[in-house]
Amino acid sequence: MTPLLDALRERVGERYATLPEADRPELSDRHRRYHGRVQALVRPADTAEVAAVVKLCAERRVPVVVQGGNTGLMGGATPDDSGHAVLLRLDRLDRIRAIDTDNDTLTVEAGCVLQRVQQAAQAVDRLFPLSLGSEGSCTLGGNLATNAGGNAVLRYGNTRELTLGLEVVTAEGEIWHGLRGLRKDNTGYDLRDLYVGSEGTLGIITAATLKLFPLPRTRLTALVSFAVLTQAVAFLSLARQGLDAGLTAFELLSADCLELLHEQFPEGPNPFPERREPWYALLEFSSSATQGEAQARFEAVLADGLEQGLLSDALLAGSLAQSQALWLMRENLSDAQARAGRNMKHDISLPISQIASFVERTGDLLQARFRGVRHYTFGHLGDGNLHYNVAHPLDQSVAAHMAHYAAVSEIVHDSAHALGGSISAEHGIGQRKRDVLPRYKSPLELELMRRIKQALDPHNLLNPGKVLVIPS
Amino acid sequence: MTPLLDALRERVGERYATLPEADRPELSDRHRRYHGRVQALVRPADTAEVAAVVKLCAERRVPVVVQGGNTGLMGGATPDDSGHAVLLRLDRLDRIRAIDTDNDTLTVEAGCVLQRVQQAAQAVDRLFPLSLGSEGSCTLGGNLATNAGGNAVLRYGNTRELTLGLEVVTAEGEIWHGLRGLRKDNTGYDLRDLYVGSEGTLGIITAATLKLFPLPRTRLTALVSFAVLTQAVAFLSLARQGLDAGLTAFELLSADCLELLHEQFPEGPNPFPERREPWYALLEFSSSATQGEAQARFEAVLADGLEQGLLSDALLAGSLAQSQALWLMRENLSDAQARAGRNMKHDISLPISQIASFVERTGDLLQARFRGVRHYTFGHLGDGNLHYNVAHPLDQSVAAHMAHYAAVSEIVHDSAHALGGSISAEHGIGQRKRDVLPRYKSPLELELMRRIKQALDPHNLLNPGKVLVIPS
Repeated sequence: MTPLLDALRERVGERYATLPEADRPELSDRHRRYHGRVQALVRPADTAEVAAVVKLCAERRVPVVVQGGNTGLMGGATPDDSGHAVLLRLDRLDRIRAIDTDNDTLTVEAGCVLQRVQQAAQAVDRLFPLSLGSEGSCTLGGNLATNAGGNAVLRYGNTRELTLGLEVVTAEGEIWHGLRGLRKDNTGYDLRDLYVGSEGTLGIITAATLKLFPLPRTRLTALVSFAVLTQAVAFLSLARQGLDAGLTAFELLSADCLELLHEQFPEGPNPFPERREPWYALLEFSSSATQGEAQARFEAVLADGLEQGLLSDALLAGSLAQSQALWLMRENLSDAQARAGRNMKHDISLPISQIASFVERTGDLLQARFRGVRHYTFGHLGDGNLHYNVAHPLDQSVAAHMAHYAAVSEIVHDSAHALGGSISAEHGIGQRKRDVLPRYKSPLELELMRRIKQALDPHNLLNPGKVLVIPS
Repeated sequence: MTPLLDALRERVGERYATLPEADRPELSDRHRRYHGRVQALVRPADTAEVAAVVKLCAERRVPVVVQGGNTGLMGGATPDDSGHAVLLRLDRLDRIRAIDTDNDTLTVEAGCVLQRVQQAAQAVDRLFPLSLGSEGSCTLGGNLATNAGGNAVLRYGNTRELTLGLEVVTAEGEIWHGLRGLRKDNTGYDLRDLYVGSEGTLGIITAATLKLFPLPRTRLTALVSFAVLTQAVAFLSLARQGLDAGLTAFELLSADCLELLHEQFPEGPNPFPERREPWYALLEFSSSATQGEAQARFEAVLADGLEQGLLSDALLAGSLAQSQALWLMRENLSDAQARAGRNMKHDISLPISQIASFVERTGDLLQARFRGVRHYTFGHLGDGNLHYNVAHPLDQSVAAHMAHYAAVSEIVHDSAHALGGSISAEHGIGQRKRDVLPRYKSPLELELMRRIKQALDPHNLLNPGKVLVIPS
């Protein structure tokens, strides 16, 4: 039999199938938590080459790990260290295949960087609303594989809701041509949504047809503050009633987050300096109305919130520059935390009605066991998604604190689960949460997932060891 | 072994497990196209009883056909005539289990009639936007099983997009507790969307957690006319840009539809009597702005359409009564057709950019082969969904025309398929389109669907003979 690397080279060309050095960045995840080894790193040129590579690997029972921009946080795109797998990078599948403005759709290949997709939409006067911190390097394929969320879910939904059709290479190396640009199609089982969010374990997404939206004419930003968290939830409801789909962001930040930003980025804005409150939210109102009309509507809602005693303070950005400065605060939050030393990150979601209980209860549980831990709590309140990060007590070193990561996470996840929440809102499972998942999913649900995996990838060759443990 | 009927009675009580008379309406579909026979008709009281019934049937390898309001058009809820199946009516599972206004969710059982769900939402000042002609008798379970579309998809999506969580009884009679009220949850495969739209063939949906929305403050209606269909498509784009998510309906009607309405309902409105155009659209603009503001916005968009020469005429309803009269036209369209004699109905969808080509091309193909056939073309233009109905030539009897149903449908479906469209936009497959489906789905996609069916219902006991043919 031809050696695998030679056979791969026959399919994609010598240059694009290599045996990578052990320190290649593709073999580790972004935070260098996981490291893998592989038989080959392959960079196919198009869907046909992807299919040929997968077919070859299937015939030889070689696992295939697919990787996009390698920006994931769960180790979902890092191969294991057995050295058996082929790592498939889709960066060369980066074409925008079609834009249909009458249908408000765009068809794009999996390796295309998210920001390029946003720009292609903007160039035809449309919005592709998916937006996340890593948009300059993450790829659409990764966004689809993890059903990425981000900043615009409140109005536009997750990646899943933005997707109309897919092209997928199956575990056997066949190509499913499902690139439909249809808003309504009820002709059988929903394969599309099964592949979205399956983290490369059921099939390899090579292209997608995505929804486009009108570009909002006006966008306005406000920062508001709350005396208690329940008032933020009540004001979210009031703002949704008043602004409907126009409410495109409702980002919560605790006072500790604001304080941290002020410490780490002293040149940034310092809103409400005289009156600190425990909670803040950054709101965006997008509208097809004129600036003047939109501003009047937004002001009315803010005034209503103040009058009803839900808001302590409200600041409507008076210029584009002021608005950008406020959003920069939110964007700097990851860096501000990093500068202050590592902390324990949690990406959880809850029914919005349970958020205040969660924060109170989980804080108490953590203080009881890990006295003095500090919280950086922020997130997409409108989606029920909190980034609930736990930092070291001031009388303890970062390293000593981090030794308790698993125990702290268990308290956080148990608490979210008990209130009907999820242990992974937008980051997926990968390898990092794989072994804790059975604590929160019923044996029946895991069994149904395993049966689907078995049906679509009977030899467990697609991204093995991610999401689920498959008994061999 | 206890006879099946007795065993069923032990589980649900004597009253609720019966051997139905052959002429019971549950044994036929709404249009009496299909008739079935069963071993028993069972009406469980709750999810536990559904599970017990399904488990019993699974043990004895007895098929189970689930039925909601029995308003489907594809025979999807009618058992076959083998007499082997148990027919499961879910009408007693009709509780609204919970409403959470802070989370904007409602949890409801499958047997609840859609209109009651709408009313329950309205009672707490929220909108549950799913809305269809049969809303007074169809049930949520049926809506979920068929991923029902209807009148508000343009803004709010199909039933799938309105669903956050499900409770499902599996083929083995286990209960999957998936009633999550989360906007973001990425913890494994998307079982929810797999069950939605699977027409009772993969599991039995017993309850769902659904999204609620703010009630629009203002709703305005307009009727507009177009000289050519491409202008309707262009105006849809303009209206989306101008009204964004506020554009909640864009319903197309051909001049022949309007003529038919005028004939059959002469007391109804007669818009633009001096200037007939070939195409009309009924638009709805929903807004959280005041009546005055919303009207100014809507008028500006209509004026823009007139100025750009896209619209021939525009009529903005000046009162609630006038708006209702215009919507009544749309609602009367089914009855108007029925009064004029049977015709051939097609529920297709297309990329919106292909709609004008489709109508022109399909009309030509049909005239070439069935000279003189007449068209009642209408539908949800904003979703690319046409109800493309073909009526008898005036020199031919209805019966003679209807003899060509299969041949006409094949032309219509082939034409939609060739342009990237679907043969079933919102009515599903059931038994009626099951055997034509392989003409339009690739063998690979059908194979993937069969593997999933095999994985979740290995003995083919759930609604057998619907959607797919499973070789025994």
